[in-house]
Amino acid sequence: MKKHNFNAGPSILPREVIEKTAQAILDYNGSGLSLMEISHRAKDFQPVVDEAVALFKKLLNIPEGYSVLFLGGGASMEFCMVPYNFLEKKAAYLNTGTWAKKALKEAKAFGEVVEVASSEKDGFTYIPKNYEVPADVDYFHITTNNTIYGTELHADPDVNVPLVGDMSSDIFSRPVDVSKYICIYGGAQKNLAPAGVTFVIVKDDALGKVSRYIPTMLNYKTHVEKGSMFNTPPVVPIYAALQTLRWIKAQGGVEEMQRRAKVRAEMLYAEIDRNKLFRGTVTNKGDRSLMNICFVMADEYKDLEAEFLKFATEKGMVGIKGHRSVGGFRASCYNAMPVESVQALIDCMQEFEKMH
Amino acid sequence: MKKHNFNAGPSILPREVIEKTAQAILDYNGSGLSLMEISHRAKDFQPVVDEAVALFKKLLNIPEGYSVLFLGGGASMEFCMVPYNFLEKKAAYLNTGTWAKKALKEAKAFGEVVEVASSEKDGFTYIPKNYEVPADVDYFHITTNNTIYGTELHADPDVNVPLVGDMSSDIFSRPVDVSKYICIYGGAQKNLAPAGVTFVIVKDDALGKVSRYIPTMLNYKTHVEKGSMFNTPPVVPIYAALQTLRWIKAQGGVEEMQRRAKVRAEMLYAEIDRNKLFRGTVTNKGDRSLMNICFVMADEYKDLEAEFLKFATEKGMVGIKGHRSVGGFRASCYNAMPVESVQALIDCMQEFEKMH
Repeated sequence: MKKHNFNAGPSILPREVIEKTAQAILDYNGSGLSLMEISHRAKDFQPVVDEAVALFKKLLNIPEGYSVLFLGGGASMEFCMVPYNFLEKKAAYLNTGTWAKKALKEAKAFGEVVEVASSEKDGFTYIPKNYEVPADVDYFHITTNNTIYGTELHADPDVNVPLVGDMSSDIFSRPVDVSKYICIYGGAQKNLAPAGVTFVIVKDDALGKVSRYIPTMLNYKTHVEKGSMFNTPPVVPIYAALQTLRWIKAQGGVEEMQRRAKVRAEMLYAEIDRNKLFRGTVTNKGDRSLMNICFVMADEYKDLEAEFLKFATEKGMVGIKGHRSVGGFRASCYNAMPVESVQALIDCMQEFEKMH
Repeated sequence: MKKHNFNAGPSILPREVIEKTAQAILDYNGSGLSLMEISHRAKDFQPVVDEAVALFKKLLNIPEGYSVLFLGGGASMEFCMVPYNFLEKKAAYLNTGTWAKKALKEAKAFGEVVEVASSEKDGFTYIPKNYEVPADVDYFHITTNNTIYGTELHADPDVNVPLVGDMSSDIFSRPVDVSKYICIYGGAQKNLAPAGVTFVIVKDDALGKVSRYIPTMLNYKTHVEKGSMFNTPPVVPIYAALQTLRWIKAQGGVEEMQRRAKVRAEMLYAEIDRNKLFRGTVTNKGDRSLMNICFVMADEYKDLEAEFLKFATEKGMVGIKGHRSVGGFRASCYNAMPVESVQALIDCMQEFEKMH
């Protein structure tokens, strides 16, 4: 049976990315060696990193003066690397969910942290608005998409301080005004690659401004100066990321990714709003994520949750169980998600509705 | 033409590990999904981590009270995590090469660091002996195999303080007395897996003894408590590591790996010592690495270096160029290296000798 992969991450990747990576693992570029056993300093691997960096810059229209890094450790490691590198006195954080809160908590060990706004008391069901960011902070940190709660900042905020953005789960799903940011980072295991590589876009002249000692591996400068080759980078995940970047470019870039995301999300949210059995969890519809579409059973059908999960699973839906913090369901629709899979989920919802 | 993979790392892996990983990337356990797009919390991935941990413990005969972690970031990240977690006042380091020196340098930001001995002034051509380790240090750090210089500690030192060992390049190549260590770590991209996963064996009751704040991701306790699942671990490299661990077990364990390593190394060092064109770089033969076999042209044949490299490359040898710090040649012979490849290199050396 055809599987429809709604996993929240690691998550769906284009089939050609999967096939090219498998092929490279069997035989890399006809070299007789596996991608898993070539040196990261091999003549035929450096072009992979170079092209991946170039495609990052091209697809996101990154201005001059920024570096693109591929590191290990995941976005969680960036939660401490960001304040290590940028927080001299004070930083502002927007608390929009579990990951935003973890980033904020980590920064507190490095300086004063201002939580400019939070939707926590309302279960993170919207993105706070009308907050003030102090003018004297070193940066303002945002989590652009909240994977667990299904909310998303659909545009880069207009503030008068430099932004830092965790874009783990919506990178390459929309155009970004990178010039507003000194740092954009994310685990790549959603829109880009398998787990194991973390991307960082960093403004070069924002580095070197803090007075503390930074351990070598936690210092972005180390990696900027060595082009992500200070130590052995995660070769296979970087190779897969390059294949995805090529795919995004061939499909029409981030504008096309955004168009598709809107089509998918509109279809599915329309069904959630129409179907008597379900309701969306995000209270402000304008904040609904295009990537992670969260819904629960409507109050009068609460008892049907396990039954719908079983029903949908039997129809080939994978990974639609909601995060334990929210419950219900979450359909993650990353870049590689075909509209047919969204339709298949909608068909499930409609068929299930007819049964009740 | 058959390639003989002497890469220093990432490096040769058993063919069945490569094929099983490629297959899992195309279709994981018949699930219809790729290993690259399943959740790390999927029911069928947790057993991968569990079995990998169990095999680590079994193959290395790890006593009770130790945890095995799979992290990102590489051994270089451990250079700061080790002192972050264990260095309260003073630590001792043995300076045996580039990586040992980097680990030592990193520790200096966290406390007093005693370099108990160094072979640096002699180009790291041997492992220092007859050093004294102060009794009041928190730990004594060793790099058990020096990939660049081709030296190796063939046994765990007898000292009266806890050991910390960087075993990036010789893990699973010999039995280890883990009970002497509070921490053993390494990048896995030599004897175990593709690049992207770092293994850490840590003694549970050695944690939590330093008074400093440790950022969440740098705190071993975080990962011990969550079984390497605090954040998304590098799924594909861990899967490949499991396949290698199964292979090691099926071949006969670390004793068999050690036997094979000795056979390979004895063959190749014998040829280096016999062949008039070459000489080994390690001055104390007892310190010669079984993993990284370094040699240069004999003084009177120095001019032939480029020619031999070309000659051997044309015969299918891959990755035998020595590190720039040493020059000449380095034949890395990790666990998966077949004796036939070592023989092929010896044949090259003998054929080349006849030509000169």
